[in-house]
Amino acid sequence: MSLLVVGSVAFDSIHTPTAERERVLGGSAVYFSYAASFFTPVRLVGVVGEDWPQEATQMLKSRNIDTSGLQVKPGGKTFFWKGRYMPNMNDRETLEVDLNVFGEFDPVLPQPFIDTPFVFLANAAPTVQMKVLSQTKNPKIVFADTMDLWIRTQHAPLLELFSKIDGLVLNDSEAKLLTEEENLITAGRAIQRLGPKYVVVKKGEHGAIFFEPDGISVLPAFPTSRVVDPTGAGDSFAGGMMGYLAAAGNTDPLTLRRALAYGTLVASYNVEDFSLDRMKEIDRSHLDQRFQQYQAMLQL
Amino acid sequence: MSLLVVGSVAFDSIHTPTAERERVLGGSAVYFSYAASFFTPVRLVGVVGEDWPQEATQMLKSRNIDTSGLQVKPGGKTFFWKGRYMPNMNDRETLEVDLNVFGEFDPVLPQPFIDTPFVFLANAAPTVQMKVLSQTKNPKIVFADTMDLWIRTQHAPLLELFSKIDGLVLNDSEAKLLTEEENLITAGRAIQRLGPKYVVVKKGEHGAIFFEPDGISVLPAFPTSRVVDPTGAGDSFAGGMMGYLAAAGNTDPLTLRRALAYGTLVASYNVEDFSLDRMKEIDRSHLDQRFQQYQAMLQL
Repeated sequence: MSLLVVGSVAFDSIHTPTAERERVLGGSAVYFSYAASFFTPVRLVGVVGEDWPQEATQMLKSRNIDTSGLQVKPGGKTFFWKGRYMPNMNDRETLEVDLNVFGEFDPVLPQPFIDTPFVFLANAAPTVQMKVLSQTKNPKIVFADTMDLWIRTQHAPLLELFSKIDGLVLNDSEAKLLTEEENLITAGRAIQRLGPKYVVVKKGEHGAIFFEPDGISVLPAFPTSRVVDPTGAGDSFAGGMMGYLAAAGNTDPLTLRRALAYGTLVASYNVEDFSLDRMKEIDRSHLDQRFQQYQAMLQL
Repeated sequence: MSLLVVGSVAFDSIHTPTAERERVLGGSAVYFSYAASFFTPVRLVGVVGEDWPQEATQMLKSRNIDTSGLQVKPGGKTFFWKGRYMPNMNDRETLEVDLNVFGEFDPVLPQPFIDTPFVFLANAAPTVQMKVLSQTKNPKIVFADTMDLWIRTQHAPLLELFSKIDGLVLNDSEAKLLTEEENLITAGRAIQRLGPKYVVVKKGEHGAIFFEPDGISVLPAFPTSRVVDPTGAGDSFAGGMMGYLAAAGNTDPLTLRRALAYGTLVASYNVEDFSLDRMKEIDRSHLDQRFQQYQAMLQL
């Protein structure tokens, strides 16, 4: 089944302790769709300025990503983010953010996108996420991402969003901020009480915790020593997870756990190079091979 | 097969954000032996002062823990530690340490302990750990624990110890300190090059990473919202792991992973109350039941 993602499309400038890259492709919807495209066709909705290269759109199209929902604003500039990672490669500081055309993003779903069964609302203001949701027709399952900024400044719209989605994906620090709970298990359950049946708490190098109505699973990250650039890890995780789910077309407990595992594995490749570079080098067979290693490692 | 542990026997005063306990039973060898006693007979070597209650020794004996190596120093006082946990229940500060008789601990193995096949050198100065090792005869497998203090102040003796042991158990922060590597996978591999064939990097609430000669496994912690007192979590983890290994009597890859899992699960019970209190409420069947949940959660 197909999968809709609405989110940011961006240029990133990234400084790590050992290397840097200027104005590489990024944004939550870009990482998400590329990751999901290993599994299923993707429909992307976003906005860019006239500085966005046509080749980038072509590259996405070549991955079976439908870009007919990608608005190009004449005279506008694409969202730009510049950040620097600390030596632990987990913490980072934002050096520059220019929202540009993403600041007035008014998502419009092309008619053929409206009845997409699997929907992911990537990180954006909850009011923007709600606008997307109001244009969809009977989605089978809707997941959303959020961030500390909206938790702090848009609490009421966020709670309204939570009452309308099936699943929420967020970081450990965001889960603690949202619930004022230090224990992540308690925090995840508290978030479920706010609406989402499913909650995924991402812990970066420590994996993810998955809250279902009937239980909790914890999956570790895939052990890798090659962490070149963590940018987009969370979005490629979500893309892999939703892509796998959409391809499977169901939400059985085992399918859900495998979806989380594939999300974990796509993210483990993504961090091995800047931007989409590492993901561009692999295909589904690499993911399946790493899945077998991962499965074996967790077999008890 | 039987299992020898040499380490601290102590009284702890513990303050958490919600509760406190004064002078409860603690110490690495106590947590370790109790945890291991779910699986196998244990031989304990340690030292206490005359303030150590006979009932505590009796309690250990009732668990099939041989205390004939527990020296009682007349006129001496037992090792005392007082600490406070931060709201995240992970970080802690030491408020008071009185080494007392543990400061001049000169471990002597009773004759029948000398050929114990499974040996655990709990946290102590590496010179003390070496003294134990020199008294053993052809152990099948020797694991050791260490801490930041020895990494900083006893580097040479520590490296000598590493060349003589099969496995090392240490915290993530200690692994980084020891190797000056931020990436834990790189750090673990670097420690293997210092000697130990097996390395277990403990990550607290995030589980553990296990380095074997041929590969790496990562296991998450068991998800629990009931974290009352994390004291002894690392020692009960090691006790469960070594106890399971000693009972199995082999170090096959699957046995090793299951040993790590059982260590994880004993620790998950241990943190649910102060001192040994929660472990005293359970038996092997509780561990086996939680193992089934854990196994199912990780089945992909």
